[in-house]
Amino acid sequence: MEIKRPTLVLNKTTCLQNIELMADKAQRHKLRFRPHFKTHQSIEIGRWFRNFGVEHITVSSVKMAQYFASDGWKDITIAFPFNIHEVDDLNSLSANTKINIVVDNPITIDLIKDKIENPLDVFIKVSTGYNRVGITSSSYSQIENLLSAINEHPKLTFKGFISHAGHAYEASSRNDIQNIHFDAVMKLNRLKNYFTRRYPDLELSVGDTPSCSISEYFKGIDEIRPGNFIFNDLVQNNLGVCNIDDIAVRMHCPVISKQQNRNEIVIYGGAIHLSKDYIQNIDGKALFGRIIISIDGEKKLLNPKNYLVRLSQEHGIVRLTNKMFKHVEIGNIIEVLPVHSCLTANCMGNFITHKGEHIEMMRS
Amino acid sequence: MEIKRPTLVLNKTTCLQNIELMADKAQRHKLRFRPHFKTHQSIEIGRWFRNFGVEHITVSSVKMAQYFASDGWKDITIAFPFNIHEVDDLNSLSANTKINIVVDNPITIDLIKDKIENPLDVFIKVSTGYNRVGITSSSYSQIENLLSAINEHPKLTFKGFISHAGHAYEASSRNDIQNIHFDAVMKLNRLKNYFTRRYPDLELSVGDTPSCSISEYFKGIDEIRPGNFIFNDLVQNNLGVCNIDDIAVRMHCPVISKQQNRNEIVIYGGAIHLSKDYIQNIDGKALFGRIIISIDGEKKLLNPKNYLVRLSQEHGIVRLTNKMFKHVEIGNIIEVLPVHSCLTANCMGNFITHKGEHIEMMRS
Repeated sequence: MEIKRPTLVLNKTTCLQNIELMADKAQRHKLRFRPHFKTHQSIEIGRWFRNFGVEHITVSSVKMAQYFASDGWKDITIAFPFNIHEVDDLNSLSANTKINIVVDNPITIDLIKDKIENPLDVFIKVSTGYNRVGITSSSYSQIENLLSAINEHPKLTFKGFISHAGHAYEASSRNDIQNIHFDAVMKLNRLKNYFTRRYPDLELSVGDTPSCSISEYFKGIDEIRPGNFIFNDLVQNNLGVCNIDDIAVRMHCPVISKQQNRNEIVIYGGAIHLSKDYIQNIDGKALFGRIIISIDGEKKLLNPKNYLVRLSQEHGIVRLTNKMFKHVEIGNIIEVLPVHSCLTANCMGNFITHKGEHIEMMRS
Repeated sequence: MEIKRPTLVLNKTTCLQNIELMADKAQRHKLRFRPHFKTHQSIEIGRWFRNFGVEHITVSSVKMAQYFASDGWKDITIAFPFNIHEVDDLNSLSANTKINIVVDNPITIDLIKDKIENPLDVFIKVSTGYNRVGITSSSYSQIENLLSAINEHPKLTFKGFISHAGHAYEASSRNDIQNIHFDAVMKLNRLKNYFTRRYPDLELSVGDTPSCSISEYFKGIDEIRPGNFIFNDLVQNNLGVCNIDDIAVRMHCPVISKQQNRNEIVIYGGAIHLSKDYIQNIDGKALFGRIIISIDGEKKLLNPKNYLVRLSQEHGIVRLTNKMFKHVEIGNIIEVLPVHSCLTANCMGNFITHKGEHIEMMRS
């Protein structure tokens, strides 16, 4: 495969292994596997899931729902508080596709109620501690208000409670993630128990990759919606959620400059390719990517003393140890493990598989 | 103008005013104005510069050079250490367009020397303190080595020294920026004085928006290459380089959720729209954008106690004071002033002018 400029190379085998593990877990726990497709945003990659029996998917925008509906996906949850300005698009979409929307307040429903044309299932978004969107899971009166608004509408059906334990990403250990997930499951079960008499079919849907990857505790849960797991990245690795080998995407970057006095190499590969997400390195500083180089014809992951220390729009600055600096020459192609694969994929807009096949993503 | 989802709205009047100021400054100081087009990456916006007499441009990649050459730009500097893997593309490009490349080492030239088909002007990249790429301006022996490599090649002509004082972005005051720029100009003049006997036509090219916006000192400089100034952003405002009114781009975002207990509103507008660049706010925390809302029918920039505190892939969390929280409702469209307009524009891939015209950008 010829690399001319920053290229996001996808290892399909790794992806398929990652999907297999999650699909197995879902089956083992009798959970509906509704993967989040915002990570890859690709019709082609979406199709890989069909071989694992996946029929239900999650997306993060109406446009993404339109995109995947165009490839025949028939049951799509838009896991984002519904944006009232897209109700016309929602109507076209829900004419032929089962769409589940997410709301966290009755105002949204009030603002769209006269415009909804087709039946929709509605998840109530609850917060189990992440505090981004959603009703705090203990706020029964707010939930009741929202339920009333849903029930009053002839086209809307209350489907259940949906949560995303995004605070699992701030966990300091695998144990911490387990605890956050356990706490979330408990809170959701309390809701299920409380509302089950009135809504015997209500479902519980949870969704982050760290919890879904690590935990084996899914009491009362009906559905999982992880997304990132298909690619993984340094964030997941840093959390102890995946190994380096489980990371399916690498940015291949030409080396364009060597700065001997600083032991730095400069790559063609910057913020517009990788995104500016970072994790904290062992030296306490921001790490924008880890580095794989060829040594004596063999690919080698360098230890974190060698890392991507800075990103400009198109440049990346990699600081290396004395020893490793000697192994890299101008014109070499090095590989960068991305910090946050969802954002990196979104920056790039396409992939090449390690076999050289081009894979397109949704275009905005 | 109907806003349905995150939309980058461009004020053309502000852009034209920003261009006018910089074009005037270039004329006043008898500098060639070679604006960097990586900020807007748009053929249409590029054309606005022609009315100000601009005929020479700067880009940051071979692809960007191809894109603008396709619109008739005839003199293009690729201000990025040349990537040897793109020499074929460079050859096609330089067949019909005057291309100036940038190099900082003789190895690059050695690796492409047998493949160069058309005449090229070559700038030697020097570092005046930013320490990203380039030969340290005092390293005469390295410069001589590179000059030899250039001179040995029949198609290459040494054009001059090019620098980018990116460290001006770390300045703590306007004075600081002036000093950084003055220091860079001094260092470049030392090179000019030293080499002028051998290369009487050698040019000095400088390029960052902070220095070019603030300074009136351009002794010995032949050319300026600022880019960001056409849009400006919170980084520039924070440096004291521009006023809020000089910022030409605003992300218009629907409000999708209100979190009463935290005085937070959640907008449809996240890392994939704005990029994850941030500046430090007055409270010491990361600020991802400042907020403009409508109060009593009038647009109002909120003080920095109200700001974008967090970004997920598609969500933005805006924390507001008690007072301002009451002015924002679900379904409202609020405006976000971006931290780094180049990355924000790159994330979006297109603009709408404040008069509702669509403007396309280069697609990767």
